[in-house]
Order: sequence, then structure tokens, then C-alpha cells
Amino acid sequence: MFEERTAIQVSEAVKKVMEFSREGEKEYIDIENADGRYLAEAVIADHNIPPFDRSPLDGFAVRSEDTKNASGEHPVRLEVIETVGAGGVPSLEVKPGQAVRVMTGTIMPEDCDAIVMFELTKEIEEEGRQYIEIKRTFKEGDFVSFEGEETQKGDVLLEAGSRIHAGVIAVLATFGYKEVPVVKKPVIGIYATGTELLDVGEPLEPGKIRNSNAYMIQAQIRQAGGEPVYFGQLIDDFDLSFNAVSNALEKVDALITTGGVSVGDFDFLPEIYAKLGANVLFNKIAMRPGSVTTVAEADGKLLFGLSGNPSACFVGFELYTRPWIKKYLYSRTPYVETVKGSLTKDFPKPNPFTRFIRSKTDFADGKITASPVGMDKSQVVTSLAHTDALVAVPGGSRGYKAGDEVDILLLNREGSEVPLKDPLKTRKENE
Amino acid sequence: MFEERTAIQVSEAVKKVMEFSREGEKEYIDIENADGRYLAEAVIADHNIPPFDRSPLDGFAVRSEDTKNASGEHPVRLEVIETVGAGGVPSLEVKPGQAVRVMTGTIMPEDCDAIVMFELTKEIEEEGRQYIEIKRTFKEGDFVSFEGEETQKGDVLLEAGSRIHAGVIAVLATFGYKEVPVVKKPVIGIYATGTELLDVGEPLEPGKIRNSNAYMIQAQIRQAGGEPVYFGQLIDDFDLSFNAVSNALEKVDALITTGGVSVGDFDFLPEIYAKLGANVLFNKIAMRPGSVTTVAEADGKLLFGLSGNPSACFVGFELYTRPWIKKYLYSRTPYVETVKGSLTKDFPKPNPFTRFIRSKTDFADGKITASPVGMDKSQVVTSLAHTDALVAVPGGSRGYKAGDEVDILLLNREGSEVPLKDPLKTRKENE
Repeated sequence: MFEERTAIQVSEAVKKVMEFSREGEKEYIDIENADGRYLAEAVIADHNIPPFDRSPLDGFAVRSEDTKNASGEHPVRLEVIETVGAGGVPSLEVKPGQAVRVMTGTIMPEDCDAIVMFELTKEIEEEGRQYIEIKRTFKEGDFVSFEGEETQKGDVLLEAGSRIHAGVIAVLATFGYKEVPVVKKPVIGIYATGTELLDVGEPLEPGKIRNSNAYMIQAQIRQAGGEPVYFGQLIDDFDLSFNAVSNALEKVDALITTGGVSVGDFDFLPEIYAKLGANVLFNKIAMRPGSVTTVAEADGKLLFGLSGNPSACFVGFELYTRPWIKKYLYSRTPYVETVKGSLTKDFPKPNPFTRFIRSKTDFADGKITASPVGMDKSQVVTSLAHTDALVAVPGGSRGYKAGDEVDILLLNREGSEVPLKDPLKTRKENE
Repeated sequence: MFEERTAIQVSEAVKKVMEFSREGEKEYIDIENADGRYLAEAVIADHNIPPFDRSPLDGFAVRSEDTKNASGEHPVRLEVIETVGAGGVPSLEVKPGQAVRVMTGTIMPEDCDAIVMFELTKEIEEEGRQYIEIKRTFKEGDFVSFEGEETQKGDVLLEAGSRIHAGVIAVLATFGYKEVPVVKKPVIGIYATGTELLDVGEPLEPGKIRNSNAYMIQAQIRQAGGEPVYFGQLIDDFDLSFNAVSNALEKVDALITTGGVSVGDFDFLPEIYAKLGANVLFNKIAMRPGSVTTVAEADGKLLFGLSGNPSACFVGFELYTRPWIKKYLYSRTPYVETVKGSLTKDFPKPNPFTRFIRSKTDFADGKITASPVGMDKSQVVTSLAHTDALVAVPGGSRGYKAGDEVDILLLNREGSEVPLKDPLKTRKENE
């Protein structure tokens, strides 16, 4: 009755999932709703920035040659012939001995080649005419902000697959993207399994617990850039469950189930995969938590069979589903970013398998450290509230001490080009 | 005509803004929409986790005393009297020599005190009865997941002001928060000023640029946890603009304007503040970019007068508006998190004022480094697309070299309890 499964390494499991990556379609969305989406096209400058020579400050546009003899003792006096605000266009020719009052952002008058800020001038009114006095020399180009000095037409400003945030939106607005080409979000369905599960609104009963995975996963999907659809709980009937999964698959780009993938009597996902004719990529991974994490493929669509244990479910999503979603969104950095850092406290548990320890990072003094949060059993849910990283420690260790160097997977960073590697034993362990 | 203003330090400006902090009201939101919101109340466990002793794996619940003489040579045989799935409740008394088949998450049968996993048993059927053989001893409590071992009733799991993300949602669902008490988002109005501004959908014209700030700021407000309302552009007429600002103030919790706070001829925000009878907290800060950043207060509401230059506008929001929003949301970490790290390249520009350099962080090898992105003039918009941090360097420096230690403000981290300090000169500079 007990089924033997062959465990594969984490890196191998990620690779198998990504062999079925595909990229979403393009759609257009109003710039005011583009935040958090992913660019479907590169953004290429269609004009120079600045688009014209302009003043970077409030002051006077002058002909620099007029100032060549200016000094504290012999100030130069220039006539101010007009005032041009930002957005305005100078209307008068500027002759020798003349200047134009300009504001921050005003286009340079054609005959002027330097900007003198207000603070360096003395303003004088005589017989209804405006003058300024200048006590130093200015060179051609002084304080002018030149066309194209920031960005040249044709520059690639952003690559397809970039996540859109405030700074990206500033660039999109500058280049007139009222409608932004973004990647359609992958629709990720969710079915929870487990007869022990109560819905969030139900009172506790003996032997039962509330379903937390379905709500958690929805937030994880959104955070990764996908669109979650929660279909509810599969009930304890094979045919009804098979039909539910089969119908759901037609409506989604990928389907997540939580629970039902282990070797328990009521774990019928494996049978559902079989009846679907799905190709099971793996059904055991040499990791904790989440060794039962299973991924199958049916007609090109992936079924992520995550563990029913909340922490194992969380980790399974971050390691396997998230990169698939990011890749769908054209991201060039779909994998979780892994850095070296040190543990802040002992993790004395001997460790037969690669283990992903829910942790909280700290960046004080410019060094990355990670503190395991709470206990680390796969059922533990409360520690997830404080998790922003996973510490990956290799199997076969006798535990870790504060200060030991470990791999830290930074869940809140955008990602990495580099696929997750299996953690290697630390030097200490190998000695 | 030129107005002298007195610059204050960055830390002082932050302090003045936060003197007018206030906290929002509580509202309830469905757990499926709670992602990204802030808790208005602490979450306190109203029951133990696990809520009952249970099996953490698929196997058999046994009476440990039955196994005390078990060995490879003399296995113990137990009768399996029933199967109880997760969520079920055992119906039979378990007598000496008996066991119950249980699944992951199943409540412990009352008379059993240890769990034996499938892999360690041999299953036998004889005359319609089910038996298992066990070849080793088990102690009381072996492999049982005990009630309350993770969390005790009454434990404070999350504080008010915590940002809700996937892991927090898992906890909320576990404790039955179908409706989650969150802080009402502060409504932050936005008015752009500047006659040079074209809307994002308009074609370019000589002397004009597109309005990028209004769209960027909306995304910054959302990211900080607020609700943006973009009112459009103020036109170049004092009375109309005064009425617009005055009316907008009544509809919002705070109002942001971009541009119009400098000393140019068309910078009429200072006059609007005067006519409103507003208390100007400051109108010059010893920093670049954004020295003209102005904050005023009218009837307890803040008017954030950010610079019209995109990068100065971006920085002004992150330094002054963001902590105000976070505090409104009860956050205990409203200030931007600042860490020590090193520059990856020279920043040769002499630096008369405290400067916030738009930068991109890298965490390789567990050390935080920051690379200035693009040019660093206050008008520069394209560099914002790659910014995830600000490097703060003190005024009076002669520039910085690759490897120098600097303060790095991490914009993508949740925040810090510690108010922003004015950057101090590095050791090198002081020598």
C-alpha cells in the first residue's frame, strides 16, 4: 500500500518546471493602472531627454560673450527684454547686451548660450525698462541643460519583462505611454483539499483547522504578478474532484492544489493526475518542508501539487510556482535571488535533507544576516507572518551555529537570472 | 524680488512633518482583499496552534507501551481497528494491542500516545482484520504534534500597524479573520503645476514636456499604503488655483503639489499657502535634489509642496510624505531604513549639500553595495526606473570613490523605527 517515490534535487525540480515555461500575451492598460504589471515590450526613447536645450533653474538666459569682461568692480549691465516661463517659447530676438528672464525648464532662447541664476544678478529698473547686473563671467554652455544630455533618441530605457513601479511609470509618462503594453497576467487557479479544512468564517470543530493556504496562496500569486482564482475546496469524492480539476484546468494557465499529494489514504491527487493522462514531472523532492511537492503537466499546462502544510505550501510556491509566473511575464530574473549571509542564532537541528528555514533578514552594518523565525516544523503557520527570506541549508549537516555562513533566498527582491542552486555544505561541515 | 529662504536640515524637516502625524480610522475588509493593507489591531491567538494533539504524518496512532518489547527479531503485532482521516474524529476506544490508522493532521485518538509512520510498519491482513507489525520501540509522545506547541492562546502574533502580506494572511485565516480590521487608507490628493506640462496622451510641443510626476506619485502613494486622487493640473491663474487647492484640501487627508514652490515668477504655491493662512513648516532644505521642497499645514492637514523636477519630486515624497503615510497606517517602522554599505563606483562630483543619489543595490556575497544610476541632476527621470535606494552623502565632500562607505536608504524595505539621520561625513572625509 505504501508507495515508494524517488526524490529529486531542488535544482532539478526547478529545471523541470521551467521546461514548461511559456510567455503570456500582450495587452494594453492605462498608465494609472500599470503599477505592478510587467512590460511586454522594451521602452525605447522616441525623443531626446531633455527634448530641447533648457534652463535648469530660475534665472536669466544670456549671451556668454556679453559677460566676458564682467567683474565685481565692473559689472556688466544687460537689458531684460522678456520673461518666458516654463512651457513658453521666446518671441524676441536677443541682441548683444540683452537677456531673457527664464524659469526652471524654460527652453533656451536661440541667441543665448548661458544661464545666470537669480542669486548672481542684481535687478534694476530704469525708465520702465528692466536690467540686470552681472559681476562674473559665464562661458558658453554654463548652467544650460542640453538636449539629449540625459537620454538620446533610440536608447533602450527598459527591457521587456521589467516590473512596473513608480520610477518606471515616470519614464512611461515622459515618453507618452498613456496605454502601456503589459503582459497579460497568468490566471492561476487554486483548489484546496483536505476534509479537515474549515473555511475562514467557520467556528472551530474538534479535529478540524481553518484553511489558511488558499488565502495565503492568493496573496503569493498576486505578489508574483499573477491573477488568482480560488475555486474552493475539493470534496472527498474522486469523480467529483476529478471533474472539478479537469474543468478548472480549462479556465486557467496553471492550477495549484494544496494538500492531497502525499501517500495518505485520502491523497487522491496522484490518481487524478493519472486519469488526466498528466505527465508527473516529480512527486518527491529532497527538501524539507514540502518533500511531497508534486508537479504534473497536462496538455502543456502545469498542475502544482503543493503540500497541505502551510509552511511547506508557502515554500513550494516560492521555489517552483513563482519562477514559472515570472517567466510568463517575460521577466529576465525569474528565480529567487540567493545571497550569502550569516545566521544570527543557532539552528541546532540535525538536518538529513536540504532544508529551507523561514527567516527574517537584517541589513544592519551593510551585512546580510538571517534569523530563523519561530519553530521550523512544516505545519507551522505563525512564523510565516515574519518571513521575508528562506535560509537554505544542505542535507547531512549536524546543525548550524550563529555566525555560520549560509545561502539566503531573498523573497522580497525582484529576482535573479540565476536558477536556484542546491545549497552546498559549508566549509565547516566539509572539514 | 529674489526671496531669501532659510534651509533646515533633512532630519529637522522630517521631524517637523511628523509632528503633524495622525492615525487613520479602522475599517473591515474581506481577507481576500486585505493584501497590502495595514492591521488596525493586534492579532492575538484565540486558540492554541495546533488546536489539538495530532499526527504530523501518515501512519498509525499506537499506545507506546505496546511497543516496549518490539525489535527486529520480535516485532509487535497490533490490530488496526479503524482509519481516521484528517478532520475526522476517532469513534472507537483503543485497547492494548490496538492501533488506529491516521493521516497527516488527524487528531490523536484519546488512548494513543505515539505515532508510527507508514514506512516503519508492515501491514498484514488476516481473516478480514488488519494488523501492523512494528520492529522498534516508541516512547510516549513520539512523533506527536502537541496542542499549543506552536502558539499558545493569548500570544500576540502580530502588532497593529503590520503590513499584510501572504504570510500574515495565513495567520489571519488560521484565526478566522474573514473580515480583517485594517486602517483606512489616507486619501492623498495630487495637483501638478507647470504650464510646460503636457498630459501623457498629448504629442510633444516646443518648450513643453510631459507630466510624469503625477503618475509617478500615484504609484508611490499606493506603494506606501495610501489612496491617490489625481485632481489634474493647476492652471496659470492664481484665484482659480487657490480655489482648486482649497476645495481639494477638504476632500483629502493630505495634498501633494508638484512644482510651483521655487522662487520663479510663476511659482505661486507660497502665495496660496499665505492666503490659506497655512503654517509653512519649511520652504528650503539643505539637500539636493529637492532643496525647494516645502511643507505647510492648514487646519491640521499637510500640504506637501514637492519639486516639479521628477527626481527631486521622487526623493521628496520618499523622505517626507512616505513616513507620514506609514504613521497614519499605525506603522511602527514609518521611516526609511538606512544601512551602511559601499559605493561600487566613483561619484566624483564635489558636494556642497547633503545629496541623495539615486542608486541600485546589490547584495552579492552578503554585503550591501549601491551603484549610482545614470546622471544625477534633479531633472533626470530615466534613472528613476532603476532606483531602489538612495545613497545619502553629506555636504562639504569632495566626492566619493568606489568602495567608500556611505549611508544607503533602502526604499523597498518596509521601514525603520529610527528617524532619518543627517548623513555624517565619512571617516575619510574627516581625516
